Amino acid sequence: MKGLLEQINKPNDIKAIGKKEYGNLAKEIRRFLVQSISKTGGHLASNLGAVELTMALHLAMDFPKDKLIFDVGHQAYTHKILTGRKNEFSTLRTYEGLSGFPKRKESDCDAFDTGHSSTSISAAAGFAAARDLAGEDYKVAAVIGDGALSGGMAYEALNNIGGSRTKMLIVLNDNQMSISENIGGMAAYLGKVRTNTKYVEFKDDLEQNLRKTKAGTKLVMGLKRSKDSIKHFLVPSMFFEDMGITYVGPIDGHNIELMVRAFQTAFAANKPVLVHVVTEKGKGYGFAKENPSAFHGVEPFDIKTGKHLIPNKGKSYTAVFSEAVCELAKENPKIAAITAAMPQGTGLDVFAKEYPERFFDVGIAEEHAVTFAAGLAAGGFTPVVAVYSTFLQRAYDQIVHDVCVGELPVVFAVDRAGIVGNDGETHQGILDLSYLSHIPGLTVMAPRDATELKEMLRFAVKLGKPVALRYPRGSACDLTEPERKPVVYGKAEVLYKENEIALLAVGNMVETACKVRELLREGTYRASVVNMRFVSPMDTDVLDDMAESHRVVVTLEENIYDGGFGEKVAAYFAARGQKVQLKSIALPNHYIEHGDPEVLREKYGLTAEKIAEEIRTFYRGV
Amino acid sequence: MKGLLEQINKPNDIKAIGKKEYGNLAKEIRRFLVQSISKTGGHLASNLGAVELTMALHLAMDFPKDKLIFDVGHQAYTHKILTGRKNEFSTLRTYEGLSGFPKRKESDCDAFDTGHSSTSISAAAGFAAARDLAGEDYKVAAVIGDGALSGGMAYEALNNIGGSRTKMLIVLNDNQMSISENIGGMAAYLGKVRTNTKYVEFKDDLEQNLRKTKAGTKLVMGLKRSKDSIKHFLVPSMFFEDMGITYVGPIDGHNIELMVRAFQTAFAANKPVLVHVVTEKGKGYGFAKENPSAFHGVEPFDIKTGKHLIPNKGKSYTAVFSEAVCELAKENPKIAAITAAMPQGTGLDVFAKEYPERFFDVGIAEEHAVTFAAGLAAGGFTPVVAVYSTFLQRAYDQIVHDVCVGELPVVFAVDRAGIVGNDGETHQGILDLSYLSHIPGLTVMAPRDATELKEMLRFAVKLGKPVALRYPRGSACDLTEPERKPVVYGKAEVLYKENEIALLAVGNMVETACKVRELLREGTYRASVVNMRFVSPMDTDVLDDMAESHRVVVTLEENIYDGGFGEKVAAYFAARGQKVQLKSIALPNHYIEHGDPEVLREKYGLTAEKIAEEIRTFYRGV
Repeated sequence: MKGLLEQINKPNDIKAIGKKEYGNLAKEIRRFLVQSISKTGGHLASNLGAVELTMALHLAMDFPKDKLIFDVGHQAYTHKILTGRKNEFSTLRTYEGLSGFPKRKESDCDAFDTGHSSTSISAAAGFAAARDLAGEDYKVAAVIGDGALSGGMAYEALNNIGGSRTKMLIVLNDNQMSISENIGGMAAYLGKVRTNTKYVEFKDDLEQNLRKTKAGTKLVMGLKRSKDSIKHFLVPSMFFEDMGITYVGPIDGHNIELMVRAFQTAFAANKPVLVHVVTEKGKGYGFAKENPSAFHGVEPFDIKTGKHLIPNKGKSYTAVFSEAVCELAKENPKIAAITAAMPQGTGLDVFAKEYPERFFDVGIAEEHAVTFAAGLAAGGFTPVVAVYSTFLQRAYDQIVHDVCVGELPVVFAVDRAGIVGNDGETHQGILDLSYLSHIPGLTVMAPRDATELKEMLRFAVKLGKPVALRYPRGSACDLTEPERKPVVYGKAEVLYKENEIALLAVGNMVETACKVRELLREGTYRASVVNMRFVSPMDTDVLDDMAESHRVVVTLEENIYDGGFGEKVAAYFAARGQKVQLKSIALPNHYIEHGDPEVLREKYGLTAEKIAEEIRTFYRGV
Repeated sequence: MKGLLEQINKPNDIKAIGKKEYGNLAKEIRRFLVQSISKTGGHLASNLGAVELTMALHLAMDFPKDKLIFDVGHQAYTHKILTGRKNEFSTLRTYEGLSGFPKRKESDCDAFDTGHSSTSISAAAGFAAARDLAGEDYKVAAVIGDGALSGGMAYEALNNIGGSRTKMLIVLNDNQMSISENIGGMAAYLGKVRTNTKYVEFKDDLEQNLRKTKAGTKLVMGLKRSKDSIKHFLVPSMFFEDMGITYVGPIDGHNIELMVRAFQTAFAANKPVLVHVVTEKGKGYGFAKENPSAFHGVEPFDIKTGKHLIPNKGKSYTAVFSEAVCELAKENPKIAAITAAMPQGTGLDVFAKEYPERFFDVGIAEEHAVTFAAGLAAGGFTPVVAVYSTFLQRAYDQIVHDVCVGELPVVFAVDRAGIVGNDGETHQGILDLSYLSHIPGLTVMAPRDATELKEMLRFAVKLGKPVALRYPRGSACDLTEPERKPVVYGKAEVLYKENEIALLAVGNMVETACKVRELLREGTYRASVVNMRFVSPMDTDVLDDMAESHRVVVTLEENIYDGGFGEKVAAYFAARGQKVQLKSIALPNHYIEHGDPEVLREKYGLTAEKIAEEIRTFYRGV
């Protein structure tokens, strides 16, 4: 059993593999995935579940001519293997290495960049419309998980292709999971469809029984003429049929030949067809199969034990938030917590166990999450919505329209703010200061360390106004000195006061600023450090004070410059007609590729050393 | 038939009206609405359709204890009449007058502020959860139109309440329309349900026929035991049932007693119930009934003729865009146009007639609209997405994630940018410069006048990159002098060059700046006028030039200051260490209430006179 994978070196090579070898190739791919990801880290469970599904799509399609769009995209590893990228897996998710997501820049077999959830059907519908308008004839397919199907835009897209009868394939990859377990009426519904073999048997039985009598046969014929009722009667899934989409399934998502036939039939149809395949997350690797949540996105691990190889780096901000929100909920029965399908990722899993009645996992549905929170707030509660910076982008309108216009006290715990690293462009949390800090009525805060995150969260839930609290991915520091000052609305905290260089830092950049201060001291420069705490409203008193008492003012943030903190500070001084020697340390105004966060910080000049160097140069030039 | 409405002066007064008088009260309300709106303007057709529905809700509910949330909210006029606000209708949508939407600040009977589409079920679910957690017992209801049901977040909410079995009422107000006709699989589906009386008869027939034989009776009993199949078989709407929501309907949305019974039954259930009522937009006023689109939002009109009383003020920006996009589509077969349920509002109705195959109305679904456009662009087309500034907020994530990360050439025609006036807080287009101009890879432009809008659109569709083009509501000026210069990427246009005061203006503020220049001349101040054209990227050469050659630089924009153009300019000068005497004319950082645009511009200092005054004061102080 060697060498099948060796024969797969470019798109469509899979078509030369004999049918009898499909199972063995799938095994080889799984072994390759486990071995490769155990070394590099990456998304494991979802990729193990989608091996046969992807093989079947490659057997039924032709790349790069045909367009295949993976929703979210973290399950596209087999697609990468089958399109000539097998040998790059050792560089997976590292700087300048293979991306963990589909990327048009990486391969012409990647039709569309994905990363966020529920976009694939819309994008595929666009491709299909372009194809039809241009009179071309390529195939278009979207692969979407049952989890991503809880996102509203997937429904918007289904509604549209159903109405317009767009010729395309949707593969519903039903593994009964988002990253965590699935939520909502649709999940329950799919569960019923999945397990309804008895129901299917009953119907066959019924039709046969009816046909035994003349009246019965007439009724069956009547049923068949009445298109709607016969469908209701004989097809288990009316949901998609109701939307105008032909439904096929559920079928075994690990049976390649069955899927190839279904996909070929679907592609031959002149309308949208949804093929519902049931797969098993983590299939073929025991630890991942038993605990797909833990093996969703993994660090390097030991294949034999399933244990992480890299020791835990200390308590994460997420863990600190997790504790803090539970403490507050203990004191205050009006605190509720909301996640959009990320109980583990956001640390709300602990809250869910301790306060199940006040915990709401709404599924992958950030828009609903925010407006639902607004409703809870209008009903007298203080909801804490814990969400990653990049995913909160989807609820910009709801933050404005449903929370801030009505001045409702919703707290946004914005996790993974700043550089997140290996997931790359679509996942970096580098825009939140820009898209949040201009929103009228929204207070935007960022803690300097673990203890301050707790204090700020306590402050936020008492504030009685909309507030966003951003904190980064990874382990939380605790700055032991100088003494902490209590959080006061709109006020910064001056940590060190000197008179040459004022370092105004936001969130995790406070720790960096303290290091920069030390580095500058070695060169005899004296630097003050201010923990800004609030980006909106800004502490203009501290800005005035620092500008007056220092030769140089430096802003530090892990966000793009445009619309961010540094730009606001610059604008503030300019608007006052105040000439300040100002240096802004921020990310440039473009998307940040994947790679280790430290590598990226080095590249973009956000390490203490790089910053100190830049300040020295600037200071000398003033 | 006088005086029923006179008896309605506070919440719950309707309950004292005898059943026999319901029809007459409805007639009085309709007459009141037509007369009142004919004078003030406002939303007519949707309110005429919802009279009986709202009366029935008031008969089945208790205000302000119970919580009623109107999706979008423009159909809440009868609710306002029934809750003591009848006498304020003469001030409807005027400055400091009655809002055209539900407002918590206006009445404790308005449970939640709405304005954008598809938010009501989420907000109601939040209220219901708060109620249950607090052990209270009020009723919660959301009223949502079939149009708003195409918005994804409505589905996210249905999915959630279906899964969690939240006790609440959803009234599906099915009038077969968004503002325009409805789109998509769901609309077709509801159409089938609505007209399916034959289908219902056929099923009754079938059951009776089956019961005639012993085998048939056995089968019917079998069907009834098998809960799913009997439901599929006997209930016309499985869509909602599939989601876990009990479906009742369709029922006549103008039969008050029938609706009251249905609502009472629904409130008594311990789960989510959707009551599907069929109403007629514009009911009771012939012109509105015949042409509900034209009578969706109206200016003051003559009741007898249905004609507008206020003469047309000249060609709107929308009409200019409408012509321009058709011209371009004629030349270039790769141009497609997309609207989210606003063909008339955006002016794409003309395009739809001329190029039906390249026109896509996706329904109220801004997220899908944008990612669908991204798919079209990836497939080789140049899509123009025409959308109002305030509604594009909903697609912030899709603009970033699906268009700009992949650098796809989608053109956003952002209509109703700036102050829109009477619709108020939820509809003003005062955030788009802030939420668009920081997005990496997005070019943001604004034309000074009608001719420039055409030129910019031509420029934008050829650019090959993501670009947003913002223009205001209302009539478009044409600045006849000085001579026009061609649009060059990232470059401003200097209209008048002097040396005292530099007016840097964005979009419609260029016209204002020209007027300001005239006013300043009267006071012997010499002002240059720069048409910025691009907000992102900014023309820094022109900024440098103006700063060097003038004593004072003034920025002018119709957007909030935070994150907007003025802030960017200020930050630019500050970052260069350049001391510039700078004045920013922009909106303050809060939501802008409803009122006539000119009244609001006067209040917020955006008229030429106010600006000239402010500049004179500033200049004297320099």
